[in-house]
Amino acid sequence: MTALATEYLSQLGGRVEAIEAAADTILAQVGIRFDDDPQTLELWHAQGARVVDTTVFLDGAQLREIIRATSPTQFTLVARDKTQDCIVGRDHPPIFAPVYGPPDVLLRDGQRTPGSRQLYRELVAMADACDAMRNTGHMLCVLNDVPEHDRPAEMAQAHLDVSTKPFMGTMMSPSAALDVIDLTRAATSRELQSDNAACHLLHLVNSTPPLTYGANPLKCLRAVAEKGEGCLVTSFMMLGATGPASVAGALAQGYAECLAGLALAQLWRPGTPVVMGLYATQFSMRSMLPWFGDPLSQTVQFHAVKLARHLGVPVRGDGGLTSSCVDDAQAGSEGSRATSAAIVAGCDFILHSAGWLESGRCVSITKFEREAAALSAELASFRQPSINT
Amino acid sequence: MTALATEYLSQLGGRVEAIEAAADTILAQVGIRFDDDPQTLELWHAQGARVVDTTVFLDGAQLREIIRATSPTQFTLVARDKTQDCIVGRDHPPIFAPVYGPPDVLLRDGQRTPGSRQLYRELVAMADACDAMRNTGHMLCVLNDVPEHDRPAEMAQAHLDVSTKPFMGTMMSPSAALDVIDLTRAATSRELQSDNAACHLLHLVNSTPPLTYGANPLKCLRAVAEKGEGCLVTSFMMLGATGPASVAGALAQGYAECLAGLALAQLWRPGTPVVMGLYATQFSMRSMLPWFGDPLSQTVQFHAVKLARHLGVPVRGDGGLTSSCVDDAQAGSEGSRATSAAIVAGCDFILHSAGWLESGRCVSITKFEREAAALSAELASFRQPSINT
Repeated sequence: MTALATEYLSQLGGRVEAIEAAADTILAQVGIRFDDDPQTLELWHAQGARVVDTTVFLDGAQLREIIRATSPTQFTLVARDKTQDCIVGRDHPPIFAPVYGPPDVLLRDGQRTPGSRQLYRELVAMADACDAMRNTGHMLCVLNDVPEHDRPAEMAQAHLDVSTKPFMGTMMSPSAALDVIDLTRAATSRELQSDNAACHLLHLVNSTPPLTYGANPLKCLRAVAEKGEGCLVTSFMMLGATGPASVAGALAQGYAECLAGLALAQLWRPGTPVVMGLYATQFSMRSMLPWFGDPLSQTVQFHAVKLARHLGVPVRGDGGLTSSCVDDAQAGSEGSRATSAAIVAGCDFILHSAGWLESGRCVSITKFEREAAALSAELASFRQPSINT
Repeated sequence: MTALATEYLSQLGGRVEAIEAAADTILAQVGIRFDDDPQTLELWHAQGARVVDTTVFLDGAQLREIIRATSPTQFTLVARDKTQDCIVGRDHPPIFAPVYGPPDVLLRDGQRTPGSRQLYRELVAMADACDAMRNTGHMLCVLNDVPEHDRPAEMAQAHLDVSTKPFMGTMMSPSAALDVIDLTRAATSRELQSDNAACHLLHLVNSTPPLTYGANPLKCLRAVAEKGEGCLVTSFMMLGATGPASVAGALAQGYAECLAGLALAQLWRPGTPVVMGLYATQFSMRSMLPWFGDPLSQTVQFHAVKLARHLGVPVRGDGGLTSSCVDDAQAGSEGSRATSAAIVAGCDFILHSAGWLESGRCVSITKFEREAAALSAELASFRQPSINT
């Protein structure tokens, strides 16, 4: 696959089109695996794709056509407070959202503790207090003291209680996702205008690189899209592990995965608000662990934005990423590099932009506060009189 | 002045040309002051400029013409070891140089000590050991234990003894600058080809914002240019103190200052290798001190590169800047943001890229090492197969 991508790049002079062409070859010759979800396979079959077992061989040009035909180039995230509505898409300042997923919390006194219901509410309040963080995200820490089944509703309720900003939906299961959508819509109690691209919640639909989608993301994607809510379709690769070691190869693979997911969203319901995410981080063959904050990730970030712009959909960025275990110079340097790259590249929705620590296994309160303050300064710099050239 | 710049920007839609036009108005209506250097005033008079006392009213279009006619768009920095020669200019990876100017050194054990001859040699050795740092700079710390008069030769000798890479010249006085040039050329013992833009040393020629050049920089600029060595002409402003508070205004003022200095270099000797530097940092009205690492500086950095590209000269970047007093998360975050902006903006020669601490009053050994390692990772990312779009 890497060889294919490199070959195309050398032939075609290294433009966005070269990545697209390499992705098309991957889609046609290697295909994408869709695990344990017959409905998705049937849909692809109905679109004329060749399906062998759970692998589907796809036509990249056709996917781009499907996506471009109905994906909104920008859409509104509807907040409980109308003044907190925000638009996702180019020509609008980036929307920052906090870290997503850490099981543990690093407290101000340096003590490390499992995430809890109470800490979750405090983290949401911190995100709400930061003017630059216009989306309070999802799963700012894991609710270890709440039964797993109850967590999605608990989290959604925390966002609705503590903040009036938009936030993100759950991916625990299709039914949980639908419950949270209903809960959020009821609390928001504003009708969306049907002629305007808008939704309440973004849902993080991750592929499972290389070239696979798991059953649960596929089922959630369908449920969420049919309900008219947003999907953040992302390929998040580890260079040399779940993706090629080279930037060009990773871009080709990740773009192929994104095309498949983004097209599914439009096929299930034309007009579904989508955001494309394509990111790759280093993987250490020595420790068998990923590491975060390397400049190669910046390069991937920049080219991902170009691919998404060429496709015509809003694009995700990744801020604040670091492998450091404390909020030290390494955490500051790596995290700031990632955030700067996402901003400068022109990302529309920047996830993990505050609090991320220890390769994402921990949310640091001090790093969260430090980054929240820095993001406000960033946003202020966007408000200087325009001197774009 | 700020009002003028803002007016132009709003009229002309905010392009590079608008900054140029605002700078031209400043040059024509406010003029530039050249202190205590009759030869420079005579030169401007001979060029047809109106000279009132020490203020010269200049024609921006004429200055650009002078600069574009003879400034090399790229040039070679000649090293003692031929394999360490490097090219300054677009389409070449950035050249990183270490911090310039700090009186004190923060040692590994946290002890703070005045810079010394011995520490200087250790710092140069560290710069030499970093593959990304292709220029070992100048005044990595002040030689407090060496009589002031002897410092330029001591520093040059340290660079020649400990490293074979190119470094920077002194600005202590014209005669000191010439002595160091002679010393360096003798040690390098390679004849430069006259048909190829090349020099051994870059010299940091700073304006004194707002809109002034001091006598010593003017005299050094002349001496160095006439000798065929390089000049890094820089306007380094404090927003709201020595420059306008707005980005647009600062760009206009800084560009006006740069035009004057760059044109002088070409007038004293057509073909003088030059680099343009235009940077601005925040100034706190409360503490009456500058602070470093704010995102506004990034914005200035990006537009400075566009102005320099439009002028056709290589451009300086500023990396690693921070106000933090220890190498903590703040130092990591602010420094990395500055370095990332300089790299992504496309700067050709990036000063202060390792070691800078405490608003430049101190060089930190740990920050130097940390940043040197990060710069090598940055350089490696430039060596990935090209996928520029």
